[in-house]
Amino acid sequence: MLENNQEIRLISRPKGMPREEDFQFVEVPIPEPREGEVLVRTLYLSVDPYMRGRMTERKSYIAPYRLNEVITGGIVGEVVRSKAEGIAKGDVVLGELGWRKYNVAKAKHLTKVSPHLAPASLALGVLGMPGLTAYFGLLDIGQPKAGETVVVSGAAGAVGMVAGQIAKIKGCRVVGIAGSDQKVQYLTQELGFDAAINYKTTKDIRADLKEACPNGVDIYFDNVGGEISDAVLTLINQGARIPICGQIALYNLEKPDLGPRIQTQLLINRALMKGFIVSDYKPRFKEGLTQLAEWVRTGKIKYTENIIEGFENTPKAFIGLFKGENVGKQLVKVADRLG
Amino acid sequence: MLENNQEIRLISRPKGMPREEDFQFVEVPIPEPREGEVLVRTLYLSVDPYMRGRMTERKSYIAPYRLNEVITGGIVGEVVRSKAEGIAKGDVVLGELGWRKYNVAKAKHLTKVSPHLAPASLALGVLGMPGLTAYFGLLDIGQPKAGETVVVSGAAGAVGMVAGQIAKIKGCRVVGIAGSDQKVQYLTQELGFDAAINYKTTKDIRADLKEACPNGVDIYFDNVGGEISDAVLTLINQGARIPICGQIALYNLEKPDLGPRIQTQLLINRALMKGFIVSDYKPRFKEGLTQLAEWVRTGKIKYTENIIEGFENTPKAFIGLFKGENVGKQLVKVADRLG
Repeated sequence: MLENNQEIRLISRPKGMPREEDFQFVEVPIPEPREGEVLVRTLYLSVDPYMRGRMTERKSYIAPYRLNEVITGGIVGEVVRSKAEGIAKGDVVLGELGWRKYNVAKAKHLTKVSPHLAPASLALGVLGMPGLTAYFGLLDIGQPKAGETVVVSGAAGAVGMVAGQIAKIKGCRVVGIAGSDQKVQYLTQELGFDAAINYKTTKDIRADLKEACPNGVDIYFDNVGGEISDAVLTLINQGARIPICGQIALYNLEKPDLGPRIQTQLLINRALMKGFIVSDYKPRFKEGLTQLAEWVRTGKIKYTENIIEGFENTPKAFIGLFKGENVGKQLVKVADRLG
Repeated sequence: MLENNQEIRLISRPKGMPREEDFQFVEVPIPEPREGEVLVRTLYLSVDPYMRGRMTERKSYIAPYRLNEVITGGIVGEVVRSKAEGIAKGDVVLGELGWRKYNVAKAKHLTKVSPHLAPASLALGVLGMPGLTAYFGLLDIGQPKAGETVVVSGAAGAVGMVAGQIAKIKGCRVVGIAGSDQKVQYLTQELGFDAAINYKTTKDIRADLKEACPNGVDIYFDNVGGEISDAVLTLINQGARIPICGQIALYNLEKPDLGPRIQTQLLINRALMKGFIVSDYKPRFKEGLTQLAEWVRTGKIKYTENIIEGFENTPKAFIGLFKGENVGKQLVKVADRLG
């Protein structure tokens, strides 16, 4: 019943935009689970912007990928063999696994996902790492208060769309920045953002932001960095909070780029800027997931998944992240459930 | 007994480095205190880097000075006439007053200073706004823990020298950055800094910093901004904290300057950067002053004042701040006590 196994390795560190040639598909045996382990068949595989950072050799909060080894990331899969107690064939699980069709993993490193409460793929999106990233970045660092203005960049991405919707739940005016008219429309018409700006077509992003934020910017949830952030930062209010979640505009630059120094803006506005990673909040994941699930269940948070079919399209899906191709969470669907 | 009164007005907004011609000395009458007011004879007048910001017309945490009006700032003076209860001729007081030889002020806007506990001028330095700025910026935003490495820029200035010494009290390794060999020597030999770097003569500030901070930088108390800060920020550790206290290197630039964007450094190190102003901590001033006075009394915090004599030298003293002329708190001594 089992097909062959394949894995995707990083064979060269991208310079600038990643290319399909940086990745290699390799046939590998389907491994045998040992005591306490299970064999997981990949259903959905997550491609995320932060992975670009791991492809570069540098000090960061997470170790770089090794060359000529399999890439790892969030995967939802189905258990097809189990040698672990409490986890059975047919169970759907979430784990940090290799970009493979089949992975062996210790049961204790996996989280069971109930495919009956919500689509299993959500464990990689709104009910997973991206949702939690939005939740803690916005609420813990951003500390939104009703009536404040929140700007979200990368607003139509997996994290941004949740951050903006949580800000709406908290009673804020929410302005999104995204890269297509389709995304802008989605944000304002489907997700209830108060305004959205297409940064690719605007003639003057600062002027558009100023119009969209007549009372200035109290929170800037930053997924992108670069010139978009330069513009937002000129409009911050006294006591502004700026969670730095990502800097996707910069990930593929070959050398550090220059911009206006921002410390003076932070100083004269007594503003706070903080970089974070979702794992800083691990002790509070349960709280976050419970609240997010409740908001999804009651329709207060909507979500969109952008699903590419086929394991072979994984590199393309990953590269697409940096071309702004995805509305919502970008996933690769590798297989249907058997069970 | 009273001489004539004079005040110093700002008559043109400096472009770049302030010049003496931006200021004008004007003879004015000695005012009469009304009910609830006192007449204060200036003893010491404080010149501070933040005042440069107030000379430019822009939105900030504090309103700009008005053209052709007297400049205001911290002054320690002696009461020479009183029409207020609880405050008598001969009392020494601290207030936010005009750059004048004589000011009238409401008693409720003044704080009595005991000239018997410590020199009255300290109320403008280590036991005043600069000391409190160091205290709250380092302790509240920096949150130093024993064994951590703290870098202080502008380390030989009124705020920096206190920030560094508090970090030493808290058990940190402390590295100062300053602009002369005399200052470097003062920091390491008098104030107990573990190392200090002369940024004007170093061949490679990043290399020197790296050597002085073998375990990286946990807290960067930033008074200066610009290229010095660019270098420090490349060396921050996971979870670093960066209180932004001043950006003196930039205050006299005629247009915003460019530097490497720092958000990625904050992101990959989950670091916090926060601009602040001492008045944010007003409810805790008493706590801060009590602790600072105790540290000064027990010799744990040393201080140096750089005193220029003569009201007529006030603009020169102010301009000197931006030439790095002062070691320690820069004051102008206007008069001796009569009482």
